[in-house]
Amino acid sequence: MKKLIAEFIGTLWLVLGGCGSAVLAAGYPELGIGFAGVALAFGLTVLTMAYAIGHISGCHLNPAVSIGLWVGGRFDGKDLLPYIIAQVLGGIAGAGILYLIATGKDGASIGSFAANGYGAHSPDGYNLTAALVTEIVMTFMFLIIILGVTHKNASSGFAGIAIGLGLTLIHLISIPVTNTSVNPARSTSQALFVGDWAMGQLWLFWVAPIIGAAIAGIVYKIIAPNTEE
Amino acid sequence: MKKLIAEFIGTLWLVLGGCGSAVLAAGYPELGIGFAGVALAFGLTVLTMAYAIGHISGCHLNPAVSIGLWVGGRFDGKDLLPYIIAQVLGGIAGAGILYLIATGKDGASIGSFAANGYGAHSPDGYNLTAALVTEIVMTFMFLIIILGVTHKNASSGFAGIAIGLGLTLIHLISIPVTNTSVNPARSTSQALFVGDWAMGQLWLFWVAPIIGAAIAGIVYKIIAPNTEE
Amino acid sequence: MKKLIAEFIGTLWLVLGGCGSAVLAAGYPELGIGFAGVALAFGLTVLTMAYAIGHISGCHLNPAVSIGLWVGGRFDGKDLLPYIIAQVLGGIAGAGILYLIATGKDGASIGSFAANGYGAHSPDGYNLTAALVTEIVMTFMFLIIILGVTHKNASSGFAGIAIGLGLTLIHLISIPVTNTSVNPARSTSQALFVGDWAMGQLWLFWVAPIIGAAIAGIVYKIIAPNTEE
Amino acid sequence: MKKLIAEFIGTLWLVLGGCGSAVLAAGYPELGIGFAGVALAFGLTVLTMAYAIGHISGCHLNPAVSIGLWVGGRFDGKDLLPYIIAQVLGGIAGAGILYLIATGKDGASIGSFAANGYGAHSPDGYNLTAALVTEIVMTFMFLIIILGVTHKNASSGFAGIAIGLGLTLIHLISIPVTNTSVNPARSTSQALFVGDWAMGQLWLFWVAPIIGAAIAGIVYKIIAPNTEE
Repeated sequence: MKKLIAEFIGTLWLVLGGCGSAVLAAGYPELGIGFAGVALAFGLTVLTMAYAIGHISGCHLNPAVSIGLWVGGRFDGKDLLPYIIAQVLGGIAGAGILYLIATGKDGASIGSFAANGYGAHSPDGYNLTAALVTEIVMTFMFLIIILGVTHKNASSGFAGIAIGLGLTLIHLISIPVTNTSVNPARSTSQALFVGDWAMGQLWLFWVAPIIGAAIAGIVYKIIAPNTEE
Repeated sequence: MKKLIAEFIGTLWLVLGGCGSAVLAAGYPELGIGFAGVALAFGLTVLTMAYAIGHISGCHLNPAVSIGLWVGGRFDGKDLLPYIIAQVLGGIAGAGILYLIATGKDGASIGSFAANGYGAHSPDGYNLTAALVTEIVMTFMFLIIILGVTHKNASSGFAGIAIGLGLTLIHLISIPVTNTSVNPARSTSQALFVGDWAMGQLWLFWVAPIIGAAIAGIVYKIIAPNTEE
Repeated sequence: MKKLIAEFIGTLWLVLGGCGSAVLAAGYPELGIGFAGVALAFGLTVLTMAYAIGHISGCHLNPAVSIGLWVGGRFDGKDLLPYIIAQVLGGIAGAGILYLIATGKDGASIGSFAANGYGAHSPDGYNLTAALVTEIVMTFMFLIIILGVTHKNASSGFAGIAIGLGLTLIHLISIPVTNTSVNPARSTSQALFVGDWAMGQLWLFWVAPIIGAAIAGIVYKIIAPNTEE
Repeated sequence: MKKLIAEFIGTLWLVLGGCGSAVLAAGYPELGIGFAGVALAFGLTVLTMAYAIGHISGCHLNPAVSIGLWVGGRFDGKDLLPYIIAQVLGGIAGAGILYLIATGKDGASIGSFAANGYGAHSPDGYNLTAALVTEIVMTFMFLIIILGVTHKNASSGFAGIAIGLGLTLIHLISIPVTNTSVNPARSTSQALFVGDWAMGQLWLFWVAPIIGAAIAGIVYKIIAPNTEE
């Protein structure tokens, strides 16, 4: 139960911090943080939680990460569903807090609320194929990083930095394509508040990250099995 | 006494570095560092001091942090008041140095001097409720990070990075709402120089951070008690 | 073979992440990440891979790095050619994925595709001499960093941070001069997709980095021989 | 002698990287790195060198740092002059390489070449008093950081991160005031190439950093003596 509370709080933070920086601060006139600031914010939610709750729950904060670690033989299948539920609920809680803050000014509009999308709802107009390729490849690489840095031969302690800044890197590349998901919980929470097109496109942000994560789990086991310890 | 000098110098640095970057460098034409640069500066004041004086005083630099650690059972109540006094005095000293520098050019005006505010004094016009929620939640998460990364099961050594960059993250999200406090000492020092509306709104930046910090102290003890060591 | 797969994936990531951020996100209106974001992205590809695959292949991701380490007595000459082939193929694969994504919108053009160039193809119009000096000196310093931080007397574990952020630094300085190479694999992959002038100028981005790396290998051995262990 | 070569190369890198990013990349239209990018570049020159050559020479790269460490009882006085000479020569070499690159395009002008100044030569018009206060206080805090993180009770290994990012922080605050020196070697190299007003104002960038560093050496010894080991 402590693990699930930790995943709940951590995913709440990922959504509130990452999407919150996008909604509240990215486009502020002259001084706004832009996509680079949002990329940094997403990464730092994971970096901070990795050191704060990694020793409690492993700090997945992301159904695709839990699935990739399970495929890679690093996570027990019986914890999979509870983790995913805690993550999705945490994401929704984070989005709810953000909604409360974002609507607290005159004439406020949540706009796209940092929801993920493709085609007409891609920030820069990328089509379905580009979105699919991007989300699959980015999640694949995210899991390669996670599996690599938590491998028994890796420098222990540095995992939180590499994983967090890895998520920053993924956002630096791909915000213009899909607003960057690589995380079905983060996509679900924002889509619930936006409804409409965001719910209609949500399937992609479950399917593509899970495919990418699962492939990474298989590939990483081949290049660096973790079992001989 | 050495602890109090360390807290004084550290909080001086937090205010001079964080508010200083906002006042002197954020809005410089074309090349200014913007909110993202200010967010980085605030975080780096804490990161640098965490490694420089953490081994002397624990590097709180913030009354809400001292209170949250006390509620969480990590800090001795008898040191609480001296720490808070040293932090507030350090903040005022930092603001004084900044005032001296900022007024050292023709036609200088300290403007809002990076003071915290809500309503008409929120950078982006957020109301009292949004400000309260933001400051409570952000300080809550700041303390969750601090309590988590200094827990005996966390990777020792990385705490300064996670806490410092956690403060950067908090600023990336919330500068547009309240100019970001999560720190009553930092709010007090700036309000003293601005006077007027800033003094009138200062109560929120004591009340909300302390509430958020205290709740975090209670919650964290539940999910990860530190007492079995 | 596992080492070569690791180098392949790592160099794929360097090109997809570094050049991808440049092509997809640097110039996005208002919110784009600019050269600083691209510099961060290049560095983070190396930082993340250093912790993820460093324990498999050493994480060179760059023919100049492999050659510099070989000259410096840190890398076995018989692995040199296979590593370079894996790096070039990985770079091409990364550029191919990027091509697929970048062309996935109406009216897409890959533009210069983040290829390296000098003279008329330098981002800021720097001539051949400036480009040669820049690439030689930057690669020299990159190898000094790499040789230094992997020296037996250096703080083990921090190498990935120093090397990755070292590449970020090199890009912060020199993107306007040559778009920054210091890596023949990264230059080759982009030149293959651009063809034309990029293929015609590609020689410089093999010759200069290799010269800089080789000199560093020699110099570093003089100031800090690694042999007494 | 190896120590002096290391200080030479390191200071060369500090000037080439820090001033180079300012001269070549800060003001690039639309995509330029701005003051925040320059701040990051200066810090990363020190971070990378700290891990690369820290185990050879201690990585001072700055006469004020050497003097502060000497006053603080951490550095042998007989090495002081050779270190300072190596640093100044390294800075000049870095400025020379930068001059060669920066002039390698049509219509090139080195402009202020990132030289330090006050009054009419302060980037934002700050007067002599503001410049003096800024340089003394910033160097004081830089040395507090350095003395703190290299203290025997500090987390060993993290010093390079804290010192490097500390220099980034100092630049985030103070570039608009003096272009930020805190380093007489860096000021001297740029002044030599600019001549004229830069040579006339150079005295301040020796006097103020040395005063700040010396005070820090004295203060830090009081709050945390390092001698009981």
